[in-house]
Amino acid sequence: MSRLWSPGIAALTPYVPGEQPKIVNLNKLNTNENPWGPSPRALEAIRSATSDALRLYPDPSAEQLRDTIARYHGLAREQVFVGNGSDEVLAFAFFALLRQSLPLLFPDITYSFYPVYCGLFGIQATRVPLTDAMEIRVEDYRQPCGAIIIANPNAPTGVGLPLGAIRTLLEDHPEQVVVVDEAYVDFGADSAVGLVNDYDNLLVVHTLSKSRSLAGLRVGFALGQAPLIDALERVKNSFNSYPLGRLAQAGAIAAFEDEEHFQRTRREIMETRAGLVERLTALGFQVLPSVANFVFARHRAQDGAKLAAGLRERGIIVRHFARPRIDQYLRITVGTQAQCVALTDALVTLLGA
Amino acid sequence: MSRLWSPGIAALTPYVPGEQPKIVNLNKLNTNENPWGPSPRALEAIRSATSDALRLYPDPSAEQLRDTIARYHGLAREQVFVGNGSDEVLAFAFFALLRQSLPLLFPDITYSFYPVYCGLFGIQATRVPLTDAMEIRVEDYRQPCGAIIIANPNAPTGVGLPLGAIRTLLEDHPEQVVVVDEAYVDFGADSAVGLVNDYDNLLVVHTLSKSRSLAGLRVGFALGQAPLIDALERVKNSFNSYPLGRLAQAGAIAAFEDEEHFQRTRREIMETRAGLVERLTALGFQVLPSVANFVFARHRAQDGAKLAAGLRERGIIVRHFARPRIDQYLRITVGTQAQCVALTDALVTLLGA
Repeated sequence: MSRLWSPGIAALTPYVPGEQPKIVNLNKLNTNENPWGPSPRALEAIRSATSDALRLYPDPSAEQLRDTIARYHGLAREQVFVGNGSDEVLAFAFFALLRQSLPLLFPDITYSFYPVYCGLFGIQATRVPLTDAMEIRVEDYRQPCGAIIIANPNAPTGVGLPLGAIRTLLEDHPEQVVVVDEAYVDFGADSAVGLVNDYDNLLVVHTLSKSRSLAGLRVGFALGQAPLIDALERVKNSFNSYPLGRLAQAGAIAAFEDEEHFQRTRREIMETRAGLVERLTALGFQVLPSVANFVFARHRAQDGAKLAAGLRERGIIVRHFARPRIDQYLRITVGTQAQCVALTDALVTLLGA
Repeated sequence: MSRLWSPGIAALTPYVPGEQPKIVNLNKLNTNENPWGPSPRALEAIRSATSDALRLYPDPSAEQLRDTIARYHGLAREQVFVGNGSDEVLAFAFFALLRQSLPLLFPDITYSFYPVYCGLFGIQATRVPLTDAMEIRVEDYRQPCGAIIIANPNAPTGVGLPLGAIRTLLEDHPEQVVVVDEAYVDFGADSAVGLVNDYDNLLVVHTLSKSRSLAGLRVGFALGQAPLIDALERVKNSFNSYPLGRLAQAGAIAAFEDEEHFQRTRREIMETRAGLVERLTALGFQVLPSVANFVFARHRAQDGAKLAAGLRERGIIVRHFARPRIDQYLRITVGTQAQCVALTDALVTLLGA
């Protein structure tokens, strides 16, 4: 706290990202990174862009990248907004669209950055409890509100919401923006991208950090009808003209041009997930049905925090949230087969099974 | 405009960056890019970081980069904030420090992003006129205010402010933050970085886009005492955990480790500037004394807008601002010798000299 700060800064509760440990040789299953590398084409495109041309500013409106994404998803450039990771895209969406006089609705258990944005931008929020099965029930959102944001699949649960339920949400709230944060959608959930042209109140947010394996590059995007994208552009252009550098734009474009790599690696992760769920269940875990690249699991007998600490001692990091309703759960990233086996082996020891 | 936007979005007046033309072979002297490429060491470091490790998130607190910058400037890590270009750093400073109940002061002629941030964050601003010689007179800032921001050298004038005047500003306003935006400081102005440990109300903002020739990478930083940096960190961590990707961090670190390249290229630009000023003066231009990598010049007889248009027809882009007090000026980036000669040759034709 300092006398020199702007009002409200001292009251902020910043987001705490999953640990990025400096120690090597850790089995890092805590931040939902992709165990497979990015497309070699993306790496090659970045290398090509690593030249004296870095002295020049990037295209501030990232037209080529937006065209690539638009083509990939069957939309127009004006329906695509790109940003410095989906966290930045979400920040702009909170400011430009979700900041309304009535409260914003989101699940009580969801991506923990949402309440942080609300704190930053002075947005009132109402948290709508998930069901006991940790599911979103869209009927619970039938209440006066300024806007809605959900993650699909939800985080940290990994549970997906069928497209029919999303349609219901959109039709129940024609005068409110509904943001569907699809950071993990490529691992088995139904995407709402196909609904963009049908609903002018829908904004879908994607990232290249998960299924495209480019967390280190920082690229995310939003898809929606032109007026929603225009609002994001207005805020972005009042904040930072050039959020995406030349390397990020080049790498992201190339990533979308390697469909084979994308399909193969995401399929691999889904297959590994199936085996992991099976082994965790056999070890006495209750595992929520996951359509993400992580699973959310609690042991029927052992304390979640203790298990997380025990795994850490064995060089395996998973994420544990000390929060009501989920403090018995571990969120475990689906790594390689070998990483998942190392995890379950360590759990066998810890559980004395 | 859409019924779905948050309040105030329709009223924003976004910043308009200098044109990034798609046409090649233009003599691009409009966005103050460095005519020399970045350090080869920076390019090499980026290439090394272009690997499967891009699947991993970057260090959210960029400790290694902040340590490098701290060492370079004789400060501690806690006195360094890094962001996605100095525009993002400035945005955070406006929100975290300059947003006060009393108005923010800045010159009437200065970086045109400042009023845009004010619009975005609802900051009241008072513009303090430059003198007729286009200089900042710090005595004019002796008025009730919430905070102050100046650019040194100022943009788009290129005129520098002596360190003594900055000290006066800091001492006149001990209860207000004074931001000194030093984007162009390495081309001959006096830096206030040496004052950081003396004044707890000073924040100095730098960029790697100009003297480090990395506009395409997007890295900027702020230097100040720990409580000011802490305010920026709080806002950044409530907005986007990972504004700097792995490649940006790696390239920026290496850029600071190539002092020889830095010194040689900035000296080259200062020498080229001297010759350009001489030739422009001979052509009938009044050139403001520049300590930046651009000059701000008006012709004694010819209209500024017409000259800019004429240059463009000849494949040379300079920046012209259609704004009161400066609509007769051209802002011309100091390019290579050859680019500057091409510019003055074109001017000779245009002026019929």
